[in-house]
This record gives sequence, structure tokens and C-alpha cells, in this order.
Amino acid sequence: MAPFCAAVDWGTTNFRLWLLDANGAALAERSSGEGMRACQPDRFEPVLEAHLAAIGAGSDLPVVVAGMAGARGGWREAPYRETPASLEGLYADAIKIDGLARDVRILPGVCQRGKGREDVMRGEETQLAGAWAESGTTGLFCLPGTHSKWARVEEGGLVGFATYMTGELFAVLSQHSILREMVAAGEGDSTSPAFQDAVEEMVGGAGLTEKLFSIRAASLLDGAAAPDAKARLSGLLIGAEIAAARKDLREQMEVTLVADGAQAKAYEAALAVAGIACRTRDGQDLVRRGLHSAALALWPERAAV
Amino acid sequence: MAPFCAAVDWGTTNFRLWLLDANGAALAERSSGEGMRACQPDRFEPVLEAHLAAIGAGSDLPVVVAGMAGARGGWREAPYRETPASLEGLYADAIKIDGLARDVRILPGVCQRGKGREDVMRGEETQLAGAWAESGTTGLFCLPGTHSKWARVEEGGLVGFATYMTGELFAVLSQHSILREMVAAGEGDSTSPAFQDAVEEMVGGAGLTEKLFSIRAASLLDGAAAPDAKARLSGLLIGAEIAAARKDLREQMEVTLVADGAQAKAYEAALAVAGIACRTRDGQDLVRRGLHSAALALWPERAAV
Repeated sequence: MAPFCAAVDWGTTNFRLWLLDANGAALAERSSGEGMRACQPDRFEPVLEAHLAAIGAGSDLPVVVAGMAGARGGWREAPYRETPASLEGLYADAIKIDGLARDVRILPGVCQRGKGREDVMRGEETQLAGAWAESGTTGLFCLPGTHSKWARVEEGGLVGFATYMTGELFAVLSQHSILREMVAAGEGDSTSPAFQDAVEEMVGGAGLTEKLFSIRAASLLDGAAAPDAKARLSGLLIGAEIAAARKDLREQMEVTLVADGAQAKAYEAALAVAGIACRTRDGQDLVRRGLHSAALALWPERAAV
Repeated sequence: MAPFCAAVDWGTTNFRLWLLDANGAALAERSSGEGMRACQPDRFEPVLEAHLAAIGAGSDLPVVVAGMAGARGGWREAPYRETPASLEGLYADAIKIDGLARDVRILPGVCQRGKGREDVMRGEETQLAGAWAESGTTGLFCLPGTHSKWARVEEGGLVGFATYMTGELFAVLSQHSILREMVAAGEGDSTSPAFQDAVEEMVGGAGLTEKLFSIRAASLLDGAAAPDAKARLSGLLIGAEIAAARKDLREQMEVTLVADGAQAKAYEAALAVAGIACRTRDGQDLVRRGLHSAALALWPERAAV
């Protein structure tokens, strides 16, 4: 089948492109570290064109983009849609980049307003749109990361979400706090008792800032093994996230986890400790699916060919 | 009255010395930035002697020291006493530094054991001993700082305590996180609604890692004023500490706050939001008092002169 469009997930630190046919199958794929942070505003077009040339894409092939390329300070700002936001309707607020020979659209992020509830996402909404397009998945989603999101989808609409600074706290505490040396020597094994105990303490209602210091104290008093420090830090932060987020679980004790690799394993283990069932989906599959769904709505005449 | 002893509060970043008479009144006082972090092990004695010489102390004047000088990697390790620890009895575990012409003793810190409850303090126990010596104060103490302590004193014994990484989290998030620029531009006014609202959210049960991201989101969406970001970060962290620590309040909604200056004002404001009454005491007064009390027990023959 002929190429239908290119789909791009352009995040803070990574670039990923798929050449898609009209059914959404990937005919070719490219990825690199040329995320938003590595691109000055005038670098986005040449980076995109170089990847398109490398896969032999014609100059008339349209491109749909999700993620931080649409942030202020990215390629071109694609203003946020506000919750509740239709996942099928994201395409309608895509912005078209002026002055290009090629048709390039950037999908909007989604924001939530309300004092103390302010929140923003860019990229995750397209994963949620992919899950909806693929199988009509609703309920609570957990999307771990530097800034983990927990999002509620009802009848194809993103109705609300919350962000937890889990990954960023892990990074700054690992690199810049009194825990630095202990964590650097660690392994962070999410199957270890240190990880599981930490999750259990947090979902049992412990205070995060107290438990963080306990890593240091245990090391001073007991010479607690270094691999434990990293696993314990990870367990405390993921446990704090789950303890706060599960208030949105309502009657179901079940979430869709969007993750892969070691991150998926850690969250699966932590959710199990908290008594929450999960189905795990690969985030790259979902974003590709969401981009394809938006492209079908943006260029129906191409899909019909 | 003649000099009875010198009393030293030797912390991580600060050195403070008082020349005391037998009643505990300060005849002279010195302070500097020569804390433990600035002193190699062989620098403690010359630093101390230089300050003693500057106030004209004789070579037979004994010296009692509290704080990080007694930590592993400090001047000489003074092993921790374990909870429950008698505050009047701290002196009995003071270690004497060998090989000096002068009689110098370092008071022990206090540790707490038990899985998940491991904790350590060095210096705060001497403040608590000062409060006990002065007025028999018991109940719950809040001692804010880089690593804030909440300690319970009953009948002159330190029965238990917990440490919260409040000040350190404020520092690493201010310097190394996505909140950096917002907080750098801020004022951190603890009388502001931004501070009070943040405390209220946390004592109402909000999750810390979620609320931290809300500072970023509010700034992106509303261009929230920069002074608010610093006050909000401070309020969230102090609020998280109080939310976790108040489980130890039992029937009394009252604590003794050991702080001064802006830190005292911030904690007084936050405790008021949480409905907790407090009496504020100056930490330097208390540590001097605790050191004097230990010196009376160490050198009763000198006090009787």
C-alpha cells in the first residue's frame, strides 16, 4: 500500500517518525535524540526533512506531529485544548505550519484549569486518542515518566488528569541530594523487598519527605545495602504517586498502564502492592495509532484513494 | 563571675562558641562559617583554639561540644544514644578527645532503630535538653531545617522522633528542577495567600508530587506571578511536613517550635493554618542552655568553686 502520511512523536528529548499507510501500518520508521531540547526553532524543519528524505518520502507527503514540538518555545505553538477534550476531535485544533511546501500539522496538547487543579499535557493525549481509536478503552490511565500523568477517559473524552513529578524527583534527588552516593551505587530492582516495602509504606499513608530521610538514616545506622537505596527511592516516589492518584479510581481497582521495559515492570509491581489491577500498553504503539487516527480526519481524501 | 567552661555548637555549616559562667550566662561569644563541612579532621583543634584564644580563654578551660563535630567524618565520632534517651543523661555518653592538653568533650547524637523508623539527630537533642533544663518542657517539638525534626519529649526523655527532608527538597527543587526559574524570581512570603493555600492543600491530604507540578502548570497557563511560585513551593513542603507529623500530636494540638527569623514566621503561619498552636523558642538559646546543663554534670567540681 502507498504511503499515506508521516506521523511524528516529537518529545522533549526524542524524535520518532513513522511512514504510515492508510490502515496505519508502519512502512518505515526513524528515531533520534533530536528532541525539542536539541532543536532551536529554525532546526525543526531541516531535522524533519532529513528524516523524510532518508526514507524516500515525496515532497507532497503530509506530516502530523504530536508532542513538545507544539509547545511555546518549540517549532510552533499549538494552543492547548481544555478538558473535557474529545480525543477524536484533537485534529480539529491542529495548527498548520505556514510557509512550508509540505503540509505539516501539529496536534494540540490538553490543559486543565481551576485553582489548584491547573495541569498540562503534550503527547499523552495522542496516546489516549490511540487507545480510544484502537479499542475504545476508557477508565483511568497511568502514563509514567519524568512527569507522570494519570488521566480519566470517558466515552472518548479526556475528562480530567493530574501530573506527578515522580521521574524528575528521582533524578534531582539521585544527582543533587544527600542520597546521591547511596543511590549511585544502587540497582533499583523493582522485584526487591526494598522496593515493595517502600511502595507499601507510601500507599499505607506515610509522608514522603519523612521516608526520603529514612534512606539516609538506615544507611548510617545499619550500613543498609546500596542496591536497596535506589530501589527504595524508586518505590517511595512511585508509591507516593499511586497513593495520591488512586483517589480517582472510584469503584474499579484497575488502570491502563502506558509503559514498557523496566518502567512497566516497576509500575506493575507497585500497582500490585497497592491492589490495583493493570493492563499494560506500549506508549509508542498508542501514539502512532493516535497520530494515524488524527491523520485520517485531517486528510480523508488521501485515505480514500 | 569567672569563666566556667566554653560551649560549642558545631554544625554542618556553622561554628558557634560561648564562654559561660557557672550560671550559664554568656561572658563572650564567637561564631563563624567553620562548620564540619569546612573542617578536615585535623582542622577542628586549631579552629577551636583560635576562637578560644580570641576571647582570652585559659588553657585549662574545659569545652563541651554538640553537633556534627561528633559525626563519623567529623572531629571524633561520638556514638549515638538510642531512644528513649534521657536528656539529662546525654553527658554520660560524651566522648573525651584524647591527646589534647585541654579537656574537650563531644556530646552524643541520638538514633532511633526499628525497620522503617530508623532516624538520627546531632545537635537537636542538646536543644531539647536545654528546653528540659530550663523549664521542664515536654510534648512535641518541631525543629525546622534542612532536615526538619519532630521530636517527642516525655518526663525528660526523648522518646521518639522523625526527620523530614523539607529544607533540602526546597534547595534541590529550587536549584535543579523545572521549577528553578520560577522560584528564583520569587519572594517566598509566608504571609501570602499562595503560601497559606499551599499549606492548606497539603494538610487537607493532597499528594506532594502532584502539587509540585501544579506550580509549573499554573505558570504556563496563567503566567502565575513569580513571587507566588517560591511561596507556594515553601508552603507545599512545610505543609507536607506538618500533614505527616501531626499524626504524633495525640490529644494536644500544640507544639514547641524551635526556630527564629523568617523560618519561625513561616512555620508559625503554617501551623496556624493546620490549627496547631505553638510556642516559639530560639534554637541558639536552647543549645547553649543544653550545653551548660551537660557541663554542670561533667565538671561539678568547677561549678562548685
